[in-house]
Amino acid sequence: MTTYRPLDTAERLLMGPGPSSIHPRVYRALAAPVVGHLDPQFLEIMEENKTLLQEVFQTGNRLTIPISGTGSAGMETCLVNVIEPGDRVLICINGVFGQRMLDVAQRCGAEVDTVEAPWGEPIPPEKIGEALNEGEYKVVGIVHAETSTGVLQPLAETAGLVRESGALFLVDTVTSLGGVKVAVDEWNIDLCYSGTQKCLSCPPGLAPITLSERAVDVLRQRTNKVQSWYLDLSMLEKYWGEERVYHHTAPISMNYALREALLLIHEEGLESRWQRHLVNHQALVRGVEAMGLEMAVAPEFRLPSLNTVKIPEGVDDPRVRGHLLEAFNLEIGGGLGDFKGKVWRVGLMGHSSTKENIAYLLMALGDAMREQGTDLDVGAGVKAALE
Amino acid sequence: MTTYRPLDTAERLLMGPGPSSIHPRVYRALAAPVVGHLDPQFLEIMEENKTLLQEVFQTGNRLTIPISGTGSAGMETCLVNVIEPGDRVLICINGVFGQRMLDVAQRCGAEVDTVEAPWGEPIPPEKIGEALNEGEYKVVGIVHAETSTGVLQPLAETAGLVRESGALFLVDTVTSLGGVKVAVDEWNIDLCYSGTQKCLSCPPGLAPITLSERAVDVLRQRTNKVQSWYLDLSMLEKYWGEERVYHHTAPISMNYALREALLLIHEEGLESRWQRHLVNHQALVRGVEAMGLEMAVAPEFRLPSLNTVKIPEGVDDPRVRGHLLEAFNLEIGGGLGDFKGKVWRVGLMGHSSTKENIAYLLMALGDAMREQGTDLDVGAGVKAALE
Repeated sequence: MTTYRPLDTAERLLMGPGPSSIHPRVYRALAAPVVGHLDPQFLEIMEENKTLLQEVFQTGNRLTIPISGTGSAGMETCLVNVIEPGDRVLICINGVFGQRMLDVAQRCGAEVDTVEAPWGEPIPPEKIGEALNEGEYKVVGIVHAETSTGVLQPLAETAGLVRESGALFLVDTVTSLGGVKVAVDEWNIDLCYSGTQKCLSCPPGLAPITLSERAVDVLRQRTNKVQSWYLDLSMLEKYWGEERVYHHTAPISMNYALREALLLIHEEGLESRWQRHLVNHQALVRGVEAMGLEMAVAPEFRLPSLNTVKIPEGVDDPRVRGHLLEAFNLEIGGGLGDFKGKVWRVGLMGHSSTKENIAYLLMALGDAMREQGTDLDVGAGVKAALE
Repeated sequence: MTTYRPLDTAERLLMGPGPSSIHPRVYRALAAPVVGHLDPQFLEIMEENKTLLQEVFQTGNRLTIPISGTGSAGMETCLVNVIEPGDRVLICINGVFGQRMLDVAQRCGAEVDTVEAPWGEPIPPEKIGEALNEGEYKVVGIVHAETSTGVLQPLAETAGLVRESGALFLVDTVTSLGGVKVAVDEWNIDLCYSGTQKCLSCPPGLAPITLSERAVDVLRQRTNKVQSWYLDLSMLEKYWGEERVYHHTAPISMNYALREALLLIHEEGLESRWQRHLVNHQALVRGVEAMGLEMAVAPEFRLPSLNTVKIPEGVDDPRVRGHLLEAFNLEIGGGLGDFKGKVWRVGLMGHSSTKENIAYLLMALGDAMREQGTDLDVGAGVKAALE
């Protein structure tokens, strides 16, 4: 008979592409007594989560809720509710998540055109403008914060072009929401989704989304049912709305945790939080460069919450990350796709984004490199980071 | 500025249709330190969850995993992975969840026929046999434990008929798994799904599923991609398999909780657990009847984990349930659909299924009825239940 040990996970410092480290208050909320999903106590928490999510998305959108799945379920929710077979969709691709958006849109039966940029670079707005001049699209999808490359996509100019064209503007903010400015109303975003385990510093399991009234109108005018029952917003809005029409059973504990994580953001203040992410990102860059390492993305397009650092020639990537994990209980991420083996992905998200953590990381990375015979100047790195 | 109170949910005794009450060990697991989803510590937990789920499903199926969504996502996963547009599917309907299966199958583009039975009655196997003689189906779907009516559907005979016909046998065990015998291999079930918040006594948020090799073969022979990216098992099996190909980020904390909940079942023993659910169900029935109330389902088809009790004429249903919640911190469920206002749904699931809870419920129900001018013999009820 198999024997099972008591659950006893070693505490890691999470500085990879997500999950990020969790605040003790969020852990306590996770373990709060579970109540029924129609209990007045839970209905109040649902309402609070809607309001707190409106705040972090910077929107007045009525339909602002957490989807009961992870970030990718949020992506699928946004696409599947507004696309019908044969609709023309434009997807911008410069990493894994734009590629994923293409795949999901095609599964919805869309005719998809793409605008692409090399990995590690943003999509030039003028290329999107050209595509919009040539074709008529129902939806334009773009990734704000490419977790696979560490690029922050500027959105303001593109937003204007998309609105002019009449298309719905769909934005992935999985790795930006709560860490980098996301302004759904100001940027005329019609469909926006995120995940809980990045800058919100909540465990993975929910996907906050928000839809403008324009997007809701498109949903209402569909001629076919949404192909996913689980992600059908015409039913979900009645479950999360005043009607409370039973759809599925919301993940109670995860909603407790989300409330607490959003409350921490509310208390910190959104602008202060963006500023903290920016300042700590700059500290990391200074430290990394002072140690003799290089960033993979040009300064003007760097994403504060996810930093790609080039792996020097000849360095054994898995061995470095293994050493960080085993000797320091510290997780950073490896590269994905085109960037596999070429970059480390260092997350500075939410509760993980502190000066102390950056200093610890630089020290640990120095030790891992020394273990392979490469001496980096850790002292200079830490000094530069903390200055 | 909105003020938010600290999260402080009152502890409820959960005896409704789910969630059920949570064991303290499961709460502790929920709050264990979150690690990365590719951390060796988490990979071990994924493997353990697969093995523990095989045990509770009574199957050797390799593809046995928790889907990162609630029970309804499990339903959609099973249907969407084997159905292609135009496929003929037979769905058995005697309550809300059979109805839901029909809706989901149609959204997959299936041509659906149905076999129906009145609410509160099982589907006669001979009616399914007749349908199978008349048509050729790719999938036959049925609900083992109808949460909306409290009917336990006998499966053994139907399983033989379905296998003979060559169709895949798809079974909803949301309210039976871990509380009532479910034997996937013995009953030739090809696709089976459940939820975590019923007899597994884990918070809602994951959907255990299992697929036979016959079902996996059908998945492999598809001519179109699965219409849902998030629920596509051809990718999920590589994420949960040795390849560990990144798909989405699994809900870490929920998987901790599931492991602990399954471990509690492993320790209790599956047969003992089924027996406990049966014995406590019988105690509840004795108590309810001794108090002068009636069960809604005939004795031979009653579901031990979910008991429908008829609401006596003239009783104000919401007022009774409100009183139980407010005066006793006790949740039971109201009726759904055809049974709305006609029955109470009393869950005896997992950690909630104890003699003490039954006695408490009878006492509280007696008080709620007295409050409306109806005297029930609580003493006789409790005595009958405990005898």
